[in-house]
Amino acid sequence: MSLVVVGSVAFDSIETPDGSVQNALGGSAVHFSLAASLFGPVQLVGVVGEDFPEDRHQLLRNRGICTAGLEVIPGGETFRWSGKYFDDMDQRETLTCDLNVFEKFKPEIPAAYRDTGFLFLGNGAPVTQSSVLNQMNSAPFTMVDTMNFWIHQDRSELVELLGKVDALVLNDEEAYLLTQEKNLVRAGRKIREMGPRFVIAKKGQHGATIFHEDGEMALPALPLADVVDPTGAGDSFAGGLMGSLQRSNRTDLEAIKVAVAWGTITASFCCGGYGVDGILEADRSALRERFDHYRKMLDLGSVEIPLASH
Amino acid sequence: MSLVVVGSVAFDSIETPDGSVQNALGGSAVHFSLAASLFGPVQLVGVVGEDFPEDRHQLLRNRGICTAGLEVIPGGETFRWSGKYFDDMDQRETLTCDLNVFEKFKPEIPAAYRDTGFLFLGNGAPVTQSSVLNQMNSAPFTMVDTMNFWIHQDRSELVELLGKVDALVLNDEEAYLLTQEKNLVRAGRKIREMGPRFVIAKKGQHGATIFHEDGEMALPALPLADVVDPTGAGDSFAGGLMGSLQRSNRTDLEAIKVAVAWGTITASFCCGGYGVDGILEADRSALRERFDHYRKMLDLGSVEIPLASH
Repeated sequence: MSLVVVGSVAFDSIETPDGSVQNALGGSAVHFSLAASLFGPVQLVGVVGEDFPEDRHQLLRNRGICTAGLEVIPGGETFRWSGKYFDDMDQRETLTCDLNVFEKFKPEIPAAYRDTGFLFLGNGAPVTQSSVLNQMNSAPFTMVDTMNFWIHQDRSELVELLGKVDALVLNDEEAYLLTQEKNLVRAGRKIREMGPRFVIAKKGQHGATIFHEDGEMALPALPLADVVDPTGAGDSFAGGLMGSLQRSNRTDLEAIKVAVAWGTITASFCCGGYGVDGILEADRSALRERFDHYRKMLDLGSVEIPLASH
Repeated sequence: MSLVVVGSVAFDSIETPDGSVQNALGGSAVHFSLAASLFGPVQLVGVVGEDFPEDRHQLLRNRGICTAGLEVIPGGETFRWSGKYFDDMDQRETLTCDLNVFEKFKPEIPAAYRDTGFLFLGNGAPVTQSSVLNQMNSAPFTMVDTMNFWIHQDRSELVELLGKVDALVLNDEEAYLLTQEKNLVRAGRKIREMGPRFVIAKKGQHGATIFHEDGEMALPALPLADVVDPTGAGDSFAGGLMGSLQRSNRTDLEAIKVAVAWGTITASFCCGGYGVDGILEADRSALRERFDHYRKMLDLGSVEIPLASH
C-alpha cells in the first residue's frame, strides 16, 4: 500500500518572537511528506521552479520520498511565503505570499501513483483537489485539508468534493466557518453529513477531535514548553496520521485514533524547530519514546473509584 | 478521611443564548459539594442570609453534605450573582454581583472539621483562605482555587498562600496572568515553583493540564454537543477531583490523574443543565458509564506501528 500526497512545495520566511529563518523548505506537501516518511515511503506530487536547488530534491529522496511527481517549471519560481507569529504563537500574520509556479498548478498524477491505497490532498482549490481524485484508477482512502480562503471562495466546490472523500482534516475555526455552528461537536457532526466518514478537527495546542459514525473522540496535544515554530504543524500532523494508517493498512476507527495520536507526536516534533528542522531531527527512538510517554499519559489505569449512593 | 470545602453559597441568575434561569442555587461551595458528594460525604463551610430557604438546606443534606458549617446571618441576604453567556459559551459577562453576607465572610471552621484529610478553599480573598488553613489541627491535602481579581488585587497574599498548599486549580488565562508567561507549560512550571506540588490548569472545553514534579499531563474534556450552562463547571470539576481523591485516600500522581478524569466527568454533567440541575441529574450509573466511555476514548491500545529507518 503506497501513500500519495498532492500539495504545495515552498520556501518560507518565518519570524517568531524569539528568532527568524529565511527561505526555509516548506509547503504542505513537504511537511506532510517528511512526517509521513517517518513511517514508510511517500510519493509527492507538486510543482517548483528552476530555483529549487538539487540538494532539496536530494533531501526529500534521502527520506524515502519519491519526487517523480514533483514537476519543475523551466524558468519558473517556487512558491514563497513569509509570515510572523505573535507572542502566544497561536496567531500569525501572513506578510507576503507569492504563489509563482503554484498559481497555475494542474497536478498530473504519474501513472505509477494512480493505484495508491492512501491519498492526501493538501490545502488547495477544491476543483484542483477534485481533479486529482478523477485521475485515480483505484478508490484510495482519501483525506483532504482545506482552509478559510476556500470555504469563503469556493464553498460549493468544496462541499461537492466532501461528498467524494473519506476524511477531512481542518482547524476548529474552519469547522465553525464551514458550518456556521459555534459548538465544535455540532460543527463536526454537520460536516460528516456532507460526506466524510471521518472529520478531524485540529485545535493546535489543545489537541484534536475525531468525528466518526458513533460519536466523537478528543485527544490532547502533548504539552510543549518550547514551541520554536508551528509552521507546518498541521501538515506534519496529517503526515504522521496518514503515515501511520498506511503502515497499519487499516482505516477502522481504532486505527484512526492511533493514527491521530501519531499525528500529534509528529506535529510536536515539527514545532521544535524552524521550518522542517524539527521533523528532520526526529529519529525512530525519539518518536517511539514520545509516543510511549503520550500513551502512558492518557492511560487511566483500571482503579475503580466507588461512588456514593443517594 | 473527610472532605471540607470553604466557599461561596449564592443565588445565580443566568442568561444563555438558548434560555435563562432566575435565582438558581449556586456558588463555589455548592457546586463543589454537590459534585464531591457523588463520591462521599462533604462538610461545607459558608455563609447565607435568612432568605436562604429551608428546602435548599435540605437539598444539600439529602446529598450527604453536612451543613453544620453553613452560617446563617439573621436579617442578612444571600450572595446574588447574575451573568450572561455569549454565543460560543466560552465567554461570559457579569451583569450584577451583590456579595451581601459573603462580603464580610470570616469562615469559622467547626471543631469537628479541623482534623479533615482533604480541604478545598474555593475562590476568595487569599487572606481569608489562609485564615482557614490556620484553623486546621491536621495538615490536610489542601487545594485552592483563585481568580483574576485576586491575582490583580492581592498578589502577594496569594503567593504567600501558595507556599502553604498542596495544589492550585486555576484557569489557563489566570495562569498566564499570574506568571506573565504566554506558554501554558512554562506558566504551570513557574507556579509550581511558588509552592504547590500539583498545579491544575483548566482549559474549559479543551480539558486540563496537570503540572507535577516530573512534568506535565494533558487530559481532554469530553466533547459535548449541548452545553446548557457552564456556570459552576470549574467548581464541579474541583469537586469531582477532590471527591475522587478523598474516596481513594491517595494523593500520588496516578491518583491525581484519575481524579482529574473524574473532575472532567462531573464538570460535563454540570454543563448539561442550568445551575446545579445537571449535577443533580447525574446518578451513579450515568457517571460510571461516562467515565468508562472517557477511559476507552483515551485508551491507545497496544498496537505497535513500525517506523521507517533512514
